[in-house]
Amino acid sequence: MDAAAALEAFSRHGGRLAAARAAFPAAPQPWLDLSTGINPRPYPAPAASQAARARLPDPEALLALEAAAARAFDAPAERVTAVPGSEAAIRLLPDVLGVRRVAVAADTYGGHAEAWRAAGAEILDQPQRADAWVVVNPNNPDGRTVASDELVASASRRWTIVDEAFVETDPQLSVAARAGDGRLIVLRSFGKFYGLAGLRLGFVVADDRVTAGLRARLGDWPLSADALAAGQAAYPDTAWAERTRRRLGRDAARLDRLLVRAGLTPVGGTSLFRLVRAPDARATFLRLARAGILCRPFDDSQLLRFGLPGRPADWARLAAALSGDL
Amino acid sequence: MDAAAALEAFSRHGGRLAAARAAFPAAPQPWLDLSTGINPRPYPAPAASQAARARLPDPEALLALEAAAARAFDAPAERVTAVPGSEAAIRLLPDVLGVRRVAVAADTYGGHAEAWRAAGAEILDQPQRADAWVVVNPNNPDGRTVASDELVASASRRWTIVDEAFVETDPQLSVAARAGDGRLIVLRSFGKFYGLAGLRLGFVVADDRVTAGLRARLGDWPLSADALAAGQAAYPDTAWAERTRRRLGRDAARLDRLLVRAGLTPVGGTSLFRLVRAPDARATFLRLARAGILCRPFDDSQLLRFGLPGRPADWARLAAALSGDL
Repeated sequence: MDAAAALEAFSRHGGRLAAARAAFPAAPQPWLDLSTGINPRPYPAPAASQAARARLPDPEALLALEAAAARAFDAPAERVTAVPGSEAAIRLLPDVLGVRRVAVAADTYGGHAEAWRAAGAEILDQPQRADAWVVVNPNNPDGRTVASDELVASASRRWTIVDEAFVETDPQLSVAARAGDGRLIVLRSFGKFYGLAGLRLGFVVADDRVTAGLRARLGDWPLSADALAAGQAAYPDTAWAERTRRRLGRDAARLDRLLVRAGLTPVGGTSLFRLVRAPDARATFLRLARAGILCRPFDDSQLLRFGLPGRPADWARLAAALSGDL
Repeated sequence: MDAAAALEAFSRHGGRLAAARAAFPAAPQPWLDLSTGINPRPYPAPAASQAARARLPDPEALLALEAAAARAFDAPAERVTAVPGSEAAIRLLPDVLGVRRVAVAADTYGGHAEAWRAAGAEILDQPQRADAWVVVNPNNPDGRTVASDELVASASRRWTIVDEAFVETDPQLSVAARAGDGRLIVLRSFGKFYGLAGLRLGFVVADDRVTAGLRARLGDWPLSADALAAGQAAYPDTAWAERTRRRLGRDAARLDRLLVRAGLTPVGGTSLFRLVRAPDARATFLRLARAGILCRPFDDSQLLRFGLPGRPADWARLAAALSGDL
């Protein structure tokens, strides 16, 4: 793969380490993956027991997890449906809602428009003429926010799907407590803030009709035993969440200082990822990739997104690569 | 829950241990769950690494698993799509295929008719007038089989969905090698034969259009890190599969002898479960439940299904309960 092809491949989604190894075979191993917005210091979740891995998950365990998540979201338990990753919900919603004109901003997580387009929907820029409006709040990659009142008002006129994949770092932005009122639907992700994206766990908070439609399409055992065990342990642990929010805030500020020192200009993001404007983002992407560090390029050739390094050695490696010492 | 309500609850799906504990609070713990057809001696699969649990699964790992599964199924890799449990595929197929008249036998796994009914389809008994025919082969619960030629011939006239959830014990029955020819679709399950139903892993073998439709609805990360790790280890291990097939055959014969001695008449099944006719199946179900053993009742009040006990103590416990010593 040449550099241009590599850039295009990495502009769709983050996290593609195997593709990075193939595109940059001379880069030092192991790669430092900063191409996603996943907390690099995961919740210390228990693994499922051997017995739980062996049997079909019990429906009661699913209900208990949904109740624990509902308390964490401050939402009614009967409106919360667990899904195997919020991506699964994003893909199912076009069929569940059955509408055909959907507003999705161009500069947001690409999976939404992909899912609606695959379902044959027309994608609009603005919600006024749309039957559904998709808002990532705070937005990925630029961190811009939409006020709760605007989302709630929109939901009285059309389906309003609020993807709160990164809201745990700014919980006051969440409208999960009001999801299911009007046509307000909230998506939540477990893997990002809790740092366990490999477990595939997310949630939809919505009214009875959407909840029933999702459950019919997911079947009786949507989650793995490990997702159930981790979610049931993590959501009640509010002390860990509070500590983690503070730490991520400090780490995001530290990352900004590093990026600024390297001539990159932070233009947005959340505590889990920072978006920067770079004089030549492609050259910076390639220079970091050759040093075994994967960040996230975009079609806009001036932008790059960085997740947080985790271990002290990872911070040092990024600092050295950015300053040109590698 | 009274006994009649308990019977109804357990007649829908097996594996509901929490409901069993609630319905029979005086039963000895732990329960012995014989209500499913899951191999009680699982494949010794590695757990995913902490690093793999933390990050988004790499698309290349998914492709590698699909290739390994394709070799095990003797099917072309490009026709194989991994899903988070074959139940997920069962639920998605009505939307992917978009047909409205579907033949599903009354006496088979109930999830198929449920999924099609939820999608608004008309359920017929016979395939002649149907746009799709669902066949569980070998059938759950009675083990009856349909010849490969009949399935392939049907697929030249209508979508023919062959659910091979239990085919690993009788691999010569599989039509996976021909899936994607005509309108033949094959579903495979990992959890049953490999004894790891809690990981949620299954596959669809189908033509390009169905494969693309499934992938669009599943998104980029359908599987957990643990499902990926287990499947990649298990499918190439043909020696384990061969040994396990032989052991399951012996254990099924041993279970039949126990059941016959207790006055129950085996009328079908596979090596992973046995269906018996009982003079009073409900009384037998309740007697076993009070002894902490869960088998599977049906709406037909003369039938019970038993999965295989695993450990020697489990065999002894079942033998004692059946003979009335408990």
